[in-house]
Amino acid sequence: MAKIKVGVLGATGTVGQKFIYLLEQHPFFEVSDLVASERSKGKKYQQAVVWKQDAEIPANVKDLTVKTYDEPLTAKIFFSGLDAAVAGDIETYLAEKGNVVITNSKNHRMDKDVPISIPEINSEHFEILKKQPYPGFIVTNSNCSTMFLAIALAPLHKKYKIKRLFVSTLQAISGAGYPGIPSLDILGNVVPFIGGEEEKIESELKKMLGTFDGQQIIPADFTVSAHCNRVPVIDGHTETVSIEFEQKPSVNEIKELLSSFQGEPQQMDLPFAPDYPVIVREQDDRPQPRLDANLYKGMATFVGRIRECNVFDIKMVIMGHNTIRGAAGAAVLNAEYLYKKGYFDSII
Amino acid sequence: MAKIKVGVLGATGTVGQKFIYLLEQHPFFEVSDLVASERSKGKKYQQAVVWKQDAEIPANVKDLTVKTYDEPLTAKIFFSGLDAAVAGDIETYLAEKGNVVITNSKNHRMDKDVPISIPEINSEHFEILKKQPYPGFIVTNSNCSTMFLAIALAPLHKKYKIKRLFVSTLQAISGAGYPGIPSLDILGNVVPFIGGEEEKIESELKKMLGTFDGQQIIPADFTVSAHCNRVPVIDGHTETVSIEFEQKPSVNEIKELLSSFQGEPQQMDLPFAPDYPVIVREQDDRPQPRLDANLYKGMATFVGRIRECNVFDIKMVIMGHNTIRGAAGAAVLNAEYLYKKGYFDSII
Amino acid sequence: MAKIKVGVLGATGTVGQKFIYLLEQHPFFEVSDLVASERSKGKKYQQAVVWKQDAEIPANVKDLTVKTYDEPLTAKIFFSGLDAAVAGDIETYLAEKGNVVITNSKNHRMDKDVPISIPEINSEHFEILKKQPYPGFIVTNSNCSTMFLAIALAPLHKKYKIKRLFVSTLQAISGAGYPGIPSLDILGNVVPFIGGEEEKIESELKKMLGTFDGQQIIPADFTVSAHCNRVPVIDGHTETVSIEFEQKPSVNEIKELLSSFQGEPQQMDLPFAPDYPVIVREQDDRPQPRLDANLYKGMATFVGRIRECNVFDIKMVIMGHNTIRGAAGAAVLNAEYLYKKGYFDSII
Amino acid sequence: MAKIKVGVLGATGTVGQKFIYLLEQHPFFEVSDLVASERSKGKKYQQAVVWKQDAEIPANVKDLTVKTYDEPLTAKIFFSGLDAAVAGDIETYLAEKGNVVITNSKNHRMDKDVPISIPEINSEHFEILKKQPYPGFIVTNSNCSTMFLAIALAPLHKKYKIKRLFVSTLQAISGAGYPGIPSLDILGNVVPFIGGEEEKIESELKKMLGTFDGQQIIPADFTVSAHCNRVPVIDGHTETVSIEFEQKPSVNEIKELLSSFQGEPQQMDLPFAPDYPVIVREQDDRPQPRLDANLYKGMATFVGRIRECNVFDIKMVIMGHNTIRGAAGAAVLNAEYLYKKGYFDSII
Repeated sequence: MAKIKVGVLGATGTVGQKFIYLLEQHPFFEVSDLVASERSKGKKYQQAVVWKQDAEIPANVKDLTVKTYDEPLTAKIFFSGLDAAVAGDIETYLAEKGNVVITNSKNHRMDKDVPISIPEINSEHFEILKKQPYPGFIVTNSNCSTMFLAIALAPLHKKYKIKRLFVSTLQAISGAGYPGIPSLDILGNVVPFIGGEEEKIESELKKMLGTFDGQQIIPADFTVSAHCNRVPVIDGHTETVSIEFEQKPSVNEIKELLSSFQGEPQQMDLPFAPDYPVIVREQDDRPQPRLDANLYKGMATFVGRIRECNVFDIKMVIMGHNTIRGAAGAAVLNAEYLYKKGYFDSII
Repeated sequence: MAKIKVGVLGATGTVGQKFIYLLEQHPFFEVSDLVASERSKGKKYQQAVVWKQDAEIPANVKDLTVKTYDEPLTAKIFFSGLDAAVAGDIETYLAEKGNVVITNSKNHRMDKDVPISIPEINSEHFEILKKQPYPGFIVTNSNCSTMFLAIALAPLHKKYKIKRLFVSTLQAISGAGYPGIPSLDILGNVVPFIGGEEEKIESELKKMLGTFDGQQIIPADFTVSAHCNRVPVIDGHTETVSIEFEQKPSVNEIKELLSSFQGEPQQMDLPFAPDYPVIVREQDDRPQPRLDANLYKGMATFVGRIRECNVFDIKMVIMGHNTIRGAAGAAVLNAEYLYKKGYFDSII
Repeated sequence: MAKIKVGVLGATGTVGQKFIYLLEQHPFFEVSDLVASERSKGKKYQQAVVWKQDAEIPANVKDLTVKTYDEPLTAKIFFSGLDAAVAGDIETYLAEKGNVVITNSKNHRMDKDVPISIPEINSEHFEILKKQPYPGFIVTNSNCSTMFLAIALAPLHKKYKIKRLFVSTLQAISGAGYPGIPSLDILGNVVPFIGGEEEKIESELKKMLGTFDGQQIIPADFTVSAHCNRVPVIDGHTETVSIEFEQKPSVNEIKELLSSFQGEPQQMDLPFAPDYPVIVREQDDRPQPRLDANLYKGMATFVGRIRECNVFDIKMVIMGHNTIRGAAGAAVLNAEYLYKKGYFDSII
Repeated sequence: MAKIKVGVLGATGTVGQKFIYLLEQHPFFEVSDLVASERSKGKKYQQAVVWKQDAEIPANVKDLTVKTYDEPLTAKIFFSGLDAAVAGDIETYLAEKGNVVITNSKNHRMDKDVPISIPEINSEHFEILKKQPYPGFIVTNSNCSTMFLAIALAPLHKKYKIKRLFVSTLQAISGAGYPGIPSLDILGNVVPFIGGEEEKIESELKKMLGTFDGQQIIPADFTVSAHCNRVPVIDGHTETVSIEFEQKPSVNEIKELLSSFQGEPQQMDLPFAPDYPVIVREQDDRPQPRLDANLYKGMATFVGRIRECNVFDIKMVIMGHNTIRGAAGAAVLNAEYLYKKGYFDSII
């Protein structure tokens, strides 16, 4: 069967590179369009990019010619790693032209008719795509630090209702893109601030764990307080969380619920779906970004140190690979799901 | 005026080295005894120690002969950086022999008749020294991560009463001593666990912010939930905190209260007392361990990002130098205070 | 076809873990014996080990019972990651009992009848195994920092004869094992000394690039001066090299020679043989450990910045994965070669 | 006595900040002019700068108004930390206007009538200032990595004549300024390339160790081959060196010569002159940037591991603080020397 041609928007950037890296040998998709800015237009990809992935540039991509978004493109499905400064308009433009845009950029996340999708936990939100005014459509995934919270907390919220939660993050530098954070700022240091990040966690999480009532997504009604910190880690966001529930579960109930949790992507056996979305670690000192983030192809969410909290009910540590499950890999999984569910049928 | 002779217990260890480093050219004290284990006994200090301070070994110390605690010693005042495995008994032994032991070790901290002292915030606790059964006495300072919480929160608790608080720490590797944490465990990584640390914060903080009723120290009655993490930082513990008060102060009230706060050591102009115990940072991304921890000779506590909390009342970032204000420097300040207040008069 | 049972000596250590990690799903070999010290004896592997690999413990290994070397063992082929303190005697013992020991330990490397083997460059040295006095035999691989020098320089030495060379290394912390280097020693630091390392490079390289005359291995007669440094890198040793040749090649001749170089393992298509042992990087700032070391399953040697040297003839940067090609992976490749060449026939 | 007013060119940059930090409380000099680009013009310094020093902004500087170089300035003596893109022209302009420019920038270093000055080793080169065509004059200091080589090798070259040398560097990130190196490039990594650095070492060192014949500076006639690497260290360049001499000294002769070496700044007791320019370390694993670079106010050059070299005569490790002795501190020492020797007399 012929693979579906896909394009990568922002192909020379960090997230764009990760898309290209992850899509090498994908069973459904094949990269046919590389879209970047005027500066790269007309160059071969290997000349245009400062490739920073832990792998060679895929052979079928390195000689593709980089285009701009307004040139004729061969794909109808696009993965977007565009910078927020331009993502909003370009993504809208492409959706208006009848394309699917599966984006990691923040611009459309809080739009009323755009879902922030994780097929394991809120696939019913995809229904809202019908409300979009375009012949194509736009699907987003969440901010990287929100992703792991959403995945780990969704089964808990469904069963025990979250009332309030604190989260304090220790986020990897790859989350800031390239060149991103100057080494003089972060080597042997902590920066206790990431612009806009706390607000994103506090709003996106509630939307993602909200309910679709047929017309709109009603955000979950718990309260979130986030503290965001940058630490000198390459990949893997660690999050310490304290949670208050309506009905307090036991530590063991949480372990069982999380470690057995599976969603539609697991049933559908999608290529980027990990066997279990959540891996529960029993060792005191796990999860750790350097030891765990790359396991299960970077698509698992790790939860450890599940224990009683003095102030709320339960505390725990949540960790995942911020540029795979937290960004490009999440978008690929969204695409796989949409494709298998027929959302691409009218488009390609 | 002749300086007071002091000894350093655990003189070859990390905290012991820091005592020696900080006491070089101290106006009141002069190191005359270096106490370590049998292994070092009889050696010159420079042969016995693997010196890891960011300075040469002080000239007046490097040729001193290392002794064991049960040999004849010339000092009556001792700073203890002993390992917890032996600190309890040796410190008791020395107090029984009529010595003052000012210790950074944890063993006696929760003893009923031993204060965990910070002269800026709980100098009235020193009164409990009279209850100790020894001709000498033992004074402790808190665990390093608790120290900065105690200093920053004491004025707030006094005025607005803390009800509950969350703290999630990002702690430097120097807090684990030497050899301490293997580099393979922490380089480019986060370890979301420090054995016993969360329990220490949860208990010590309440004792330190408690009240002395003439007979005993009554712990403060707020509730604390701590998450402790190790990060690849050399010196400086960063702590993100969310606080619920009985009477909620405004952000500006907190800034004013903290930045103007002074205690007895400031009035007494003690050598190790910073002009202001708390420095409030206004920049979004401060405090940071690498930029701030060493300022004010490592004796200040930095507070930044004071802002409203969605879930509790106020959140903030607290940071300080864990081996100076958080350990050896705190003990030196305790000694200065005790000396000037006459607590040594009957001893030396 | 049934796989050959193999044992891992020092199974709980860093190199031992790497063997287990690399041998998971190996087409020829299957781990059947885990050998460690008395302390681990009788425990299940997952209880005995502090697993630090970037992967889960292989399912078929985690419940194996750890044995000591003098218990009955099912394998006849052993990979050794034993500590040098015990490796010499245990490896000799096992060879005397008729086993093959393929070791990463240094103890037997300079023995007259033991080769330091890299099948791409000195497979003729295996002939010396016949001189060994045991019913089994012992094969070593070199020190990790020597390995990449040997691989990159062998084709050059063969064609242009090396007279003298300087090498200054920047070595990863994983080369020191676990717990290895304390984080306080290496975070944000350089340690310009690695005990015994310079001597190993200076002697092992000459043996590895030497010739077997039917009786003994005659070391190559060039001169080597090594400077060894530890840097805060997880995996990947970088080496800057200046070389004087008998006949000076051009930069392009070197690039062509190295990038086209292949040896017997490539012709035999061995599982752990990279397609090309040496990858030549053209970018100014490559190779880099974090970007290159893991490529080609960690089995390639990268050479970059090949250029004229003011003082000698040519200078360059050589880099490779120190615990894979530089240690455990090298041993696995030796085993694959020996197996396919029939060296195991009389043993298994 | 009134202090001499000085200006800082490039005052908001990394080197400019370091000048301001070092000149706080200088006994001879007082910062009166802060010169930066149009972007900062008219702002108070504390608003214009992103201050990254490990200290508060000096009180007497933080409210100074930033100027551009072509505005009226109160100082006649300028320290330049200008970016190379603009330094050449601005420095010439100011010298033409009758000012002294003491610069850390590279632009004029190789000019025939401009010395690269280290008063301990080549103060006779200052005589060439008379050849400059300006009413003022320009003095440079070397590239940071060359500085430590020059200081450590000058006494050796004078006595034993260097013929050839290899140097391989491990350079700190602060050498690249701010924002400088992206953290994703250097955290847990080595970059074996620094643009232009090897060429600078190879040319500047020979000029600095050259002789002034009354008309011009004749470069020393040895040959240098440099390999330059960036490592994840904040401050402190480490350099491994192998040297061939005309007359080979013994290891002990070198130790004695270097550790007793003093120059004019030491005799003149200049404020920024360390008691001994070179500190010889006897421990195997020293010098190390994190433990040594900050000692002696960052103005010493450390030499360790002095030993026989297999290929040349002697090898050693050289290390110093790249932004103090290697940059801003070197310029301040030049200014102190020039002032005390009367070079400013006709200017101020």
